[in-house]
This record gives sequence, structure tokens and C-alpha cells, in this order.
Amino acid sequence: MSRFLQVVPVAEAVNAAKRIAPGRNVETVPVELSAGRILARSVPADTDIPGFDRSVVDGYAVRSADTAGAGPSSPALLRCLGRIAMGAPDPAIVLHEGECTYIPTGGVLPQGADAAVMVEYTEEAGDTILVKKPASHGENVLLHNEDFSKGETVFVPGRRLTPQDAGVLAACGCAEVPVAKKPVIGIISTGNELVPAGTRPGPGQVRDANAPMLAAWLAEYGCIPRLYGIVRDERAAFEAVIARALPECDVVILSGGSSKDDRDMTAGVIAARGEVIIHGIALAPGKPTIIGRIGSTPVFGLPGHPASAFVVLIAIVRPFLDAMLGLNNTRLRTVKATLSQNVPSQRGREEYIRVRVENRIATPLFGKSGLLNTLVKSDGLICVPAGTEGLEQGSEVEVILW
Amino acid sequence: MSRFLQVVPVAEAVNAAKRIAPGRNVETVPVELSAGRILARSVPADTDIPGFDRSVVDGYAVRSADTAGAGPSSPALLRCLGRIAMGAPDPAIVLHEGECTYIPTGGVLPQGADAAVMVEYTEEAGDTILVKKPASHGENVLLHNEDFSKGETVFVPGRRLTPQDAGVLAACGCAEVPVAKKPVIGIISTGNELVPAGTRPGPGQVRDANAPMLAAWLAEYGCIPRLYGIVRDERAAFEAVIARALPECDVVILSGGSSKDDRDMTAGVIAARGEVIIHGIALAPGKPTIIGRIGSTPVFGLPGHPASAFVVLIAIVRPFLDAMLGLNNTRLRTVKATLSQNVPSQRGREEYIRVRVENRIATPLFGKSGLLNTLVKSDGLICVPAGTEGLEQGSEVEVILW
Repeated sequence: MSRFLQVVPVAEAVNAAKRIAPGRNVETVPVELSAGRILARSVPADTDIPGFDRSVVDGYAVRSADTAGAGPSSPALLRCLGRIAMGAPDPAIVLHEGECTYIPTGGVLPQGADAAVMVEYTEEAGDTILVKKPASHGENVLLHNEDFSKGETVFVPGRRLTPQDAGVLAACGCAEVPVAKKPVIGIISTGNELVPAGTRPGPGQVRDANAPMLAAWLAEYGCIPRLYGIVRDERAAFEAVIARALPECDVVILSGGSSKDDRDMTAGVIAARGEVIIHGIALAPGKPTIIGRIGSTPVFGLPGHPASAFVVLIAIVRPFLDAMLGLNNTRLRTVKATLSQNVPSQRGREEYIRVRVENRIATPLFGKSGLLNTLVKSDGLICVPAGTEGLEQGSEVEVILW
Repeated sequence: MSRFLQVVPVAEAVNAAKRIAPGRNVETVPVELSAGRILARSVPADTDIPGFDRSVVDGYAVRSADTAGAGPSSPALLRCLGRIAMGAPDPAIVLHEGECTYIPTGGVLPQGADAAVMVEYTEEAGDTILVKKPASHGENVLLHNEDFSKGETVFVPGRRLTPQDAGVLAACGCAEVPVAKKPVIGIISTGNELVPAGTRPGPGQVRDANAPMLAAWLAEYGCIPRLYGIVRDERAAFEAVIARALPECDVVILSGGSSKDDRDMTAGVIAARGEVIIHGIALAPGKPTIIGRIGSTPVFGLPGHPASAFVVLIAIVRPFLDAMLGLNNTRLRTVKATLSQNVPSQRGREEYIRVRVENRIATPLFGKSGLLNTLVKSDGLICVPAGTEGLEQGSEVEVILW
């Protein structure tokens, strides 16, 4: 069969992919393992944080009024009632006029006190403490619920959690955190010319670079890749592997051989068992991409050249996964840079160029799309939008960093 | 005991930490799991890549001389000898003058051919192919070893591997990749005021936010965190947990209670069983940091406030881990931004300020160092170097992004 490309704009392809994205599943993970995961539910503070007025210094809890006008040569003289123990406040301790207590960082301010003075500004003389600096009301104190109030929404769903978020989630009482379950993404390599990494290529053969690259990228992006190995371009073998992958995966990626025959077979198999929704995207490299569905499982057919497959991952698969995971904000790392030379492009397609970035100068690495070495030598990609004929030397570009 | 801080500059503390960094151990991982890991050995190409002249288009393999002067109205007429099969070149096919073969993308160029013409620029008429565009020598062909030559060094040790690198490693024959083993980092929380995330804090108590934050950060940075829970500020209990952690971990981090008593006990225990190398860094927040060693195991004592502990992770622990893993280049993500207002600082210490970044404007989030909410509301940190009295509004700053 010969199913010709019908090229659609990138935005249309992305929307088509998002429309078939399965809903996310939710699981809970221990808070210390939550960084990098996508929060699936809103998280409120379950208590006031902190739950009490808390000293942020080692020093003396005081009544601020008692320290008015204090200075090195005219210290306030306060009677010390003792020490505040960490984590076990003594409700019997109440400061009256002219009194203070030693308080460690994090200690509960005793009743009557409204400020703390750092130990550096004090001097001990038996039971009397010389305070050499005035403290204002609330000084060096974290007030009750100053951080978060009970019931306040601290995190909204769809946030990609950071390590600091894990700390704050723990403070909010989340020992277990509800997150989007990692989708299982099957990867099937096709192509008669392919051999696995561990095999020495014979005449006409090349090693399958795509599957490990796709798997590594998907794992870093928060998915569980599942490799199904290399299938020859024979319809029966291909169908058998797809039949095995469909019930085991949330999404299937076909890492195509590079030839048109191979792409046609891929499209044919998807069409026979489900539907081909997009076949051809106005994207360079990456034009011969297939987006389809078998049953409710999205199936992507990626181009064979690793550089092309990578661009399709970034431009098409990434927003699809973001939709599937319910991510609020994308995870692309970008940096602004100045373009070192003109980049011509063909109007009507979105073009991605590999660039090297040094001292905020982006230098395009042109080169045949089949080359692997530009993937290793480059630092990222720039996008030339579809409506332009290229980018001019000296213009500012946003580089999507590896 | 009272072991007073003897504050040293950040660079001195970092060097002290690097000096006690254990050598890295090496393990091999499947190439598809290698992204994010640190390459431990040099990797050469084990074959020429590609191992043959390879078409990068679907079309016809030709002798470029035969197409000279060809155009839409004056096509070159070539006799087609048949099709090149993918992955199985037929050595019997040899192009002579006036001959061509169909060739799929990735196919082996037959003997005699030196270029390929895209199918779009050709027309079939029985056995004769009309070529409507001249092909230059080497056009649309990836030449034998154009990507990498056998024996050429493709990767040097110390590289943090990307997903694309995984693809190239596979192409170089690395089904298993030698990488630095993930160090096991023990985390012991100390402080009488601390309770775990799953417990509702009683009077004077707060939940331990530090340990989950540290664990999450370490896991993202390529370590294996091992949590030892919360220990009360009692020397015997503390020593027992350290004794358990030392043989199980490559590094131990003590996530201190926030009070001076607690820090003193930490320093005292390290000094009794090993040595305290640094106690106090000219760093804000993060001053009361301890760097020591028990036997050959590095031990860090981090400040109790999560914001302070986080700054010490970035400024001190990160370069230590980089040294331990043999990383060539740091993994900090940074972005340049313009400062929205003056940031005063104390000369003589390196100061880290949390900032929010919007439209390349960095807005400092001042606030008590004990607050958690600034960790969540900020996008990153800026560093005010030790030798300055602050940064001026409008100056360009480098933001270390979360």
C-alpha cells in the first residue's frame, strides 16, 4: 500500500495528539520520592505553620517594651527565669516586666514575650542579662501561622514537584503524596537494517540508536519505557509485537526504519487495527511522523533518523505527555542566545536546528539529518517558526537545552 | 561542650569538602538507563559509523556525472537496474554509465554510484527513470565513517549523559555503559522539636521538612538517599544511629536541629569519633555548617532551617558530589535576569537570596530565613559574592534555578 503524507501544521498535530491522550492515573508515593513527579491533587496545610510563635535565633525571649532605648553603654537589665527547652514548652513560664528567658532557635516564645534578642547582643551577669540593643515587637520571631494557615491551599494539582516542595509537603502533613502515575510507553523498533547495540553491524546494517535514546528521554521525563526490541519489516511479525505491547502499555511508540516502505507498512498496520489520525507534519526534521490510535491506545510512528525522532519527541510527544500527566507548566529548559549566522528556512514548516551555545552565542550545526555526531556536539535546539523564511544573524533566539 | 564557629570562606569550605570526597566506584548499566549518569570511562566508536555509504533519501542511486545538466525539460534518462533491499546489499549490483537503482533511505549505495536523487525529482517510465535535477558528488549520501571513525573517542569520562548520548553510545556498541555508581547518602535528622510528616505536631513541635527535601534533592542529583529518621538530642541515641549509618553509607548528612545546643552536640560527636574540619562558613544562610569525617566517611552537619540547608546543598554539597562522581561540568541550571531592586549584603560572606523570575526580571523574596513559603514561591537563588556590599537594582544577575 502507499499511504501518502498529508502534511499538517505542528499545532494541529499537537492538538490531535492531546485529544487522544488517556486520562492520568493517580498513585501515592512517599514524600521523599516525590520530586520530579506531577502532583495530582490539591494539598492544603493541615495545621497552622508554625503552630506557635517561634524564635529564629539563639538568644533571649524578651518583652520588647523592656528593651526600649537599650544600647552598649546603657543595656537593659533583665532577670533571667531560665531556659526554654526545645520541643517541650513549659506553660508555667510567663514573662513579666523586666524578665527574660534563654531561648534556642526554634524554641516556643513564652507567654508575655513578643521578641527575641540574639545572644551576640547580650551579656550574662549571674541571673541578670544585659541586653545591649532594643528589640522591636515581633523581632527575630516567626509568628504563629506566618508561613501557612490551616486549610490554606499550598499546592495546586499539575505542579511538577521540586525537592523543596517535598520539604513543604512534609511540613503540611503529606507523608504520602498523590501524584500522576508514570505512564508505560512501549517502544518497538522496526527496520530490516537495524541490529541491537550489542551486535556488530554486518554489511548494510546499523545499530538501533533510536530505541535507547527514546527510552532514556522518556525515563528522564517521568515515564516508564518498555522496550520490545527490533522487528523486521514483515507485517505478521510487526502485528504480533504490537498485539503484545497494546495491553501492556499506555502509549506505543514505533521507532520507524528510515525508508518509505517501512513507514508505509507502519501506517498500514495502524490503519488496519485502528486509525491513522495524522500522517505527516510540517516539521523539519520530523515530517514523516504518524499519530494514530489502536483501541484507546495512542500510537506514534517516529521517523528513523535519531535527530528527527528527537525533534518529534520535543515538539509533539512532550506536549502530549504533559496533557496526559496534567502538567501545569512544561519542563523545557531554555536559554536566550544571539544567533551567530543566518539560518535559512522554508516558509510553511516549523524547523528545528541543532545549535551549540557558548557565551550566549548560538552557532547552528548544519549537517546531514542522519548524522549522530551533531546530537552529541550540540547543546540544544532552536525553532524557526513556520511563517518565516529563516532567522537573521544577530537575532535573539530561545534555545531548548538538552 | 561549646565549640564555637570559626568561619571560613565558601571556597575554602568547598575545597575542604572536595579533599575528603571518596573516589568514585564504577558500575555498568544498560544503555537505555544511562541518561543522567556520569560516564566513568572513555568510549570510542568500535566500528566506522556508518560502515558504508548510505542514502539519506528515498529515491535513486546514481552516478553524479550522468545527471550533469539535467532539468525539468531536459531530464537525464537512466536505466533502472532494480531496488536496493534494506539491510541486505547485493554486491552483484554495480552501476555503469547511464544506470541507476531505486534506493530507500538508509540503503547501501551500490558500487559505481556516488550520489542519490530524491524521488520527488524523478519520473518513472517503465525501466527508464527521468532525473530532472543534477546531483553533485556525494549529494544525499552519508559517507562511510562520516559520523565517527573506528577507534575515535566519542565520549570522555566525567560527562553527564543525555538521552541523545544514550543513542550514540548504542551506535558505538555500548549495550552496557560504565558509569559512576550512585553514592549512598545517609540522612539523620536531629532535634527534640521534630516529628515526622505523618505525625501531627504537638505544642512546640514542628514536622521534619529537611530530611524529605534533602532526600528528594539527592535522588534527583543522582544519589541514593537513605533516611535514618529523627534522633533526639541525646548523645547516646545519636551515636548509636551514626554507628549504624557509617558502614551503610558513602556520606552521612546530619540534618541538624536549629538550636546551638544541637549543633554543638553534633560537632562534639563528630569530633569524638573523627574530626571536625570546618565549623562555620561565611555563607548566608548556612553559616553554622559542619564538615567533618569519621574514619574515611565524610560527614556534613547542615543547618536546621530548610532554606539554609538548601543553600548549603547548592553551595557546598553539590561541588563535593561533583568531585566524588568525577563530573566534568556542573548540573546547575541558570538563567540571566535583571535585578528589580537593590539587595544589600554584608561584606565578607557569600549571600544567597531567593528570587522570583518573571520576564527575565529577578525579584528578591526577602523574608525570615525560617519561612518555608519562600522556597515554594521562589524560582531560584542569586548569589551575592563575599567581596561586595550588595547588588544594585538593574544589574544583571545569574539565577540558579530550582
